[in-house]
Amino acid sequence: MAPAIDEFDLIARFFEPLARDLPGAMGLRDDAGALRLPPGQELIVSADAIVAGIHFPKDTPSGDIARRALRVNLSDIAAKGATPLAYTLTLQLPEAVDDDWLRGFADVLDEDQKTYGLGLLGGDTSRTDGPLTLSINIFGQCFENKWIKRSGACVGEEVYVTGTIGDATLGLAIEQGRIDVGNGPDRDFLRSRFFRPEPRVETGPKLLGLASAAADVSDGLIADLGHICAASSLGVELDFGSVPLSPAAERLVTDHQPLGPSLLSGGDDYEIVFTAPERARGDIDVLVRETGVAMTRIGRTVEHAGDESRVKVFDDAGRELEVRDGGYRHFGKKVSR
Amino acid sequence: MAPAIDEFDLIARFFEPLARDLPGAMGLRDDAGALRLPPGQELIVSADAIVAGIHFPKDTPSGDIARRALRVNLSDIAAKGATPLAYTLTLQLPEAVDDDWLRGFADVLDEDQKTYGLGLLGGDTSRTDGPLTLSINIFGQCFENKWIKRSGACVGEEVYVTGTIGDATLGLAIEQGRIDVGNGPDRDFLRSRFFRPEPRVETGPKLLGLASAAADVSDGLIADLGHICAASSLGVELDFGSVPLSPAAERLVTDHQPLGPSLLSGGDDYEIVFTAPERARGDIDVLVRETGVAMTRIGRTVEHAGDESRVKVFDDAGRELEVRDGGYRHFGKKVSR
Repeated sequence: MAPAIDEFDLIARFFEPLARDLPGAMGLRDDAGALRLPPGQELIVSADAIVAGIHFPKDTPSGDIARRALRVNLSDIAAKGATPLAYTLTLQLPEAVDDDWLRGFADVLDEDQKTYGLGLLGGDTSRTDGPLTLSINIFGQCFENKWIKRSGACVGEEVYVTGTIGDATLGLAIEQGRIDVGNGPDRDFLRSRFFRPEPRVETGPKLLGLASAAADVSDGLIADLGHICAASSLGVELDFGSVPLSPAAERLVTDHQPLGPSLLSGGDDYEIVFTAPERARGDIDVLVRETGVAMTRIGRTVEHAGDESRVKVFDDAGRELEVRDGGYRHFGKKVSR
Repeated sequence: MAPAIDEFDLIARFFEPLARDLPGAMGLRDDAGALRLPPGQELIVSADAIVAGIHFPKDTPSGDIARRALRVNLSDIAAKGATPLAYTLTLQLPEAVDDDWLRGFADVLDEDQKTYGLGLLGGDTSRTDGPLTLSINIFGQCFENKWIKRSGACVGEEVYVTGTIGDATLGLAIEQGRIDVGNGPDRDFLRSRFFRPEPRVETGPKLLGLASAAADVSDGLIADLGHICAASSLGVELDFGSVPLSPAAERLVTDHQPLGPSLLSGGDDYEIVFTAPERARGDIDVLVRETGVAMTRIGRTVEHAGDESRVKVFDDAGRELEVRDGGYRHFGKKVSR
């Protein structure tokens, strides 16, 4: 029943170097690894798998797959206020995967491990007759009882988001030829926001004690805020005009008015959306100055009743916008931002 | 880029109940979970993935898949002397998977969680257009610096194995029609040793302080001892006649002489093979009486030189047996046990 691959050779050549700075990984030569936490810390774990043809195009270069897989997981624990420690990787490889593929894959992991300060703790590699599949478990540490859950928001708090929203959606649309911005810096910036997400690993832990609830923006701003609302049993009123766009996105939206609202439901931004009480405003302003990371107030938490949408969006005139086809429009009237 | 499956509905119906006894799992409603360790303990992590058609037949009932996946991982951390705490599950489901499949899968996980004392901490579910694939990360706890590595064996120690070896190989051969034992208790016993492995979860932690190195017998006795040898930089001399067989296996081997040696390289026993210094004999005897789990001395650790096989097997007359085609034979002469 052994997989038709020389797993030991493959580990020695490509993966063992990724475990070198983590003593508990035992050079990947054991069937388990060990992780120790400083006193008073707990372990934060997130698990995500991605499948070729479902989560990324089948012809994506292996380095881009590695980068995306690791960073998406880093984003999950960053939004919880945790600091990354280590990850495990289980990898199912189709026959077509060769040494070049693996070299590109491992090189990017190595690079990103250094950037984000974590190491490979263990894993498993086998063949598959299906699409390439990889599953990452990421481990971070956080002070006991302090990690930022989805469920901690209270009614009457304010809603913030880091950075800018919608760039990754626009980058994907450009990549797929659905929008044309020519060959300039806007194109490069927006595409890189999709292909090279930058998880808020430094910012997340600084939100401990300020944010009452948080999630990373992976499914889309509306959807991820919806998760916070459901877990916290409340609703959110979002100010459409406050949602922060990058200059590149602003220019595109000016040229393509209907795009604006769709950005609220596009995913893959890997920013952090969080709630905080009004009294945290001063501390958040200080944090913005210290980190240089924008944190924009975009709405407030409210009571939620019955079957209503948990996340409602309002324009500058206070009119509610209606979600439809993943985008927003005025009741009965097309909206422009 | 969202998977074409209502992941939230599926989690609520099948997986949330599996997280109910683990407060840090947050009812699987967060994008991360938290695990806390008692002071002085460290976390032991093992990760394994299994793929339909490679690690198990594609038509295997979902409960058998669940049981096997969880127990194989439990066996890994049991052999390290760790006590199970929790696991994560990432699951890629083909379109054909329906509610009945998921019900059978979740029910067995629920049952085994109770048996082995662990809970579901988190995970991820998506569709695949390939074979069903599942990846489990298992988490256990162990006193700091105490877990039993592959690398701790010294020359001049003794080699032990728990329980009996070869039953699972015979069970698979019966299942595949390669051996006929009729319909009796031997058939049932041997098949269940393959389909319902019983990881040594209680025994493993009791080896702390006694065993110098350990691994579970998943790849086969010879292969797994070889991993210990490689990690500990030594060799092992194995006494073929000492390897413990169950009464059912003994009866089969008597009828089919060539089978005997092949049992040393068959996998899936999920026993623990370990090394210990001679001075531990008394304590190991006490442990055997207390637990009722057999621990049989089957060989000794020796210096290893150059290109020789790390694991050598000798018959009762002291003649070395040669490994070939996954089985053993005398140099130049077929062996019977």
